[in-house]
Amino acid sequence: MNFPVTPALSGPLIDLERHLLDCSTTIERWFREQWHHHVPPFYGSVDLRNAGFKLAPVDMNLFPGGFNNLGSIFLPLCVQAAQAAVERLCASARRVLLIPENHTRNQFYLQNVSRLADILRMTGLEVRLGSLLPEITSATPVMLPNGSSLILEPLVRQGNRLGVEGFEPCAILLNNDLSGGVPDILQGLDEQFLIPPLHAGWHMRRKSRHAAVYERIVRAFSEEIGIDPWRICPAFRVCGGIDFHARAGEECLTQQVDALLADIRRKYREYDIKEEPFVVVKADAGTYGMGVMMVKEASDIVGLNRRQRNKMAVVKEGMSVGEVIIQEGIRTVESVDGAVAEPVVYMMDHYVIGGFYRVHTTRGSDENLNAPGMEFRPLSFETPCCMPDCQQGIEAATNRLYVYGVIARLALLAASVEIEETESLTASNTNATSGCSDAMASAQNEAPRYG
Amino acid sequence: MNFPVTPALSGPLIDLERHLLDCSTTIERWFREQWHHHVPPFYGSVDLRNAGFKLAPVDMNLFPGGFNNLGSIFLPLCVQAAQAAVERLCASARRVLLIPENHTRNQFYLQNVSRLADILRMTGLEVRLGSLLPEITSATPVMLPNGSSLILEPLVRQGNRLGVEGFEPCAILLNNDLSGGVPDILQGLDEQFLIPPLHAGWHMRRKSRHAAVYERIVRAFSEEIGIDPWRICPAFRVCGGIDFHARAGEECLTQQVDALLADIRRKYREYDIKEEPFVVVKADAGTYGMGVMMVKEASDIVGLNRRQRNKMAVVKEGMSVGEVIIQEGIRTVESVDGAVAEPVVYMMDHYVIGGFYRVHTTRGSDENLNAPGMEFRPLSFETPCCMPDCQQGIEAATNRLYVYGVIARLALLAASVEIEETESLTASNTNATSGCSDAMASAQNEAPRYG
Repeated sequence: MNFPVTPALSGPLIDLERHLLDCSTTIERWFREQWHHHVPPFYGSVDLRNAGFKLAPVDMNLFPGGFNNLGSIFLPLCVQAAQAAVERLCASARRVLLIPENHTRNQFYLQNVSRLADILRMTGLEVRLGSLLPEITSATPVMLPNGSSLILEPLVRQGNRLGVEGFEPCAILLNNDLSGGVPDILQGLDEQFLIPPLHAGWHMRRKSRHAAVYERIVRAFSEEIGIDPWRICPAFRVCGGIDFHARAGEECLTQQVDALLADIRRKYREYDIKEEPFVVVKADAGTYGMGVMMVKEASDIVGLNRRQRNKMAVVKEGMSVGEVIIQEGIRTVESVDGAVAEPVVYMMDHYVIGGFYRVHTTRGSDENLNAPGMEFRPLSFETPCCMPDCQQGIEAATNRLYVYGVIARLALLAASVEIEETESLTASNTNATSGCSDAMASAQNEAPRYG
Repeated sequence: MNFPVTPALSGPLIDLERHLLDCSTTIERWFREQWHHHVPPFYGSVDLRNAGFKLAPVDMNLFPGGFNNLGSIFLPLCVQAAQAAVERLCASARRVLLIPENHTRNQFYLQNVSRLADILRMTGLEVRLGSLLPEITSATPVMLPNGSSLILEPLVRQGNRLGVEGFEPCAILLNNDLSGGVPDILQGLDEQFLIPPLHAGWHMRRKSRHAAVYERIVRAFSEEIGIDPWRICPAFRVCGGIDFHARAGEECLTQQVDALLADIRRKYREYDIKEEPFVVVKADAGTYGMGVMMVKEASDIVGLNRRQRNKMAVVKEGMSVGEVIIQEGIRTVESVDGAVAEPVVYMMDHYVIGGFYRVHTTRGSDENLNAPGMEFRPLSFETPCCMPDCQQGIEAATNRLYVYGVIARLALLAASVEIEETESLTASNTNATSGCSDAMASAQNEAPRYG
């Protein structure tokens, strides 16, 4: 059964949300069964776009960097979810080494690291921060504008174990997305848990692989609750062999952009949507909103000037772009104080723990908001988004955000399956699957039993 | 290492709290290891008393009845914890039958049932309410003062399965403490999960058994963090063969009250505490604050008049009292708006999900507050009690309540071990341990895999 759709922006939005709310019992049970078969990532964040007639994830981050943007109301949920994540990993874990990105000058990012370390400490872990930066040669305190502080320490590798001075962790939590590849010092750590596993880094990850898994998952989910999967899933195409500098691969780009735009036009006609379709061309392994371009017709992508080509050719850590994903563009109808906004939902283990709006005052509703000048606003609701309130109206913030949490969890489930599948692809997988076994065995002997 | 104690009420309170806060990493890791070996109860609540120099649980309820008293800020935590509890039980559970107490006229209790059912529904379960009351012969809607409503239905027993009309649950959640024994209709349900197991009902449970397990657990915990176990554990004694009407067992009572008072006096001298010791005599299988008496010397308990003897002789459901626990009395230093108060902490699975103060305007700090006239006030803090905030002062509500959560979880762990031990005691244990196995196996076949 597909529910009726009207073209007005607010109407279908309410239909889609109402249907998801009405199905919340089925949805929660469905997720419970899925998580029975798949191990959730330790953490993740999902960028959503809500076009009214369509609500879908546009990016899934396995190394979330905005814990500082979550309101303090979310902290208890974070800690509770982090407890579950740590238990799943290794119940006897005591020490975790957190490896952040190399942005020592980005105070906002470092506040995220500080907040994340605090959350982990509240679950009973000792946490130290090991930096990959060569200039960190001794313990380096950093004071942050919000009054918090942290200490970056040089990594110490001993045999196949990694730590910092005087600290031998059971697990290593990466908040570094490995865009530039896996540093030697992280290779072959087969006695420690690496979280997420190395093959979840952007040196290996492809947006298109995630999108394909998401599509499969959404097909099953949509059947369960009787919706057209397109309502929650961006269509996409892929092109390899791209070289923006050399103008290689333009033929594939033109064909795929044309084909995808035609697909979207057909769906727009089906739903009587009057908007102009567009697609987003992105580096298939890119992140940080780099290497992203909005395209309304195929000629947009071949007529690039040198500056535009340069912009598309290189992403984070100077990696050149050889594969792109062409993703259905989804406008956002959300705004905060008049500025265009998109929700970002944070999760730990398989729990929604909070979120915020990414807001950009100078960008349009069909543009990439993950760009310099963006701001973050706490999600404007009183109770977090893991629960619907059927007593309240559909527009109630708690209900809207329950729905956002559902879509974000679908993307998280897709990431979980994506990591499983990528693991089997990587012959060079050196990540420990039972790195804590020794520690765990001894803890089991030590821990008093009352049974 | 014991930390220093000063006699002033506020001083040692701060010492004990500060020490627990300082040890929070150790404490969380310790709990994580414990829960690796013991299955937490589905839910529970703990009454605490904070005397300043001593902070301890005085009652542990496995059938909590005050979900309606939890502030709405706690709901997301409840739902998240309930998800964990349901997953632990049976990931493929779809339907749960909730069996409430027979208090159809107690609107507050029914609001608790309604809230509990809502929480379970938010985890993706279908929930129906089956009443043990013979007068409920058809589906009976009940409107509640807070605007919510519920439908009580007659139980339907078919073979060894229990449900209500048209509803075959996988699990049966008892919010009925079975004080009057296990009704026939609940016997032999070996195809369904019964939560908590029948042997956790008050027909079988003994406060003294819980207290003995709690003492063992606290001994191990106290060693881990270096405190005198007495600081968080009420001393206790037991007397059997009691008949208050016939004045049987008075000799044992006199002896044990005397001995316990002497023990307390010794500890008070050790800690230079000037208060007058007292003990609480309670029915060992009692609940609802019935059959409880404060005693300052042994003669108090033998000189009872007829009215007092009647009051002690019978507890809930008219059960007569044959065994009593004599528990060290703990004054409460907490007050809300000038009235004496004690904190009550709620948990689901092994998570603290919220709490409130039980307040009584006409009772003293050394009296039982669980009595007619009591009121409930939401815990007066902004973020729930599962996380300490080391940036804030010791008196910050969030820190005080983290500490309360620690003590409550120790009592919950004791209940878990108590249930394990009672199970092995009960030859007549008919509770299914794998009641969902068929459903689970078929769900595993049905659930789509993406791996």
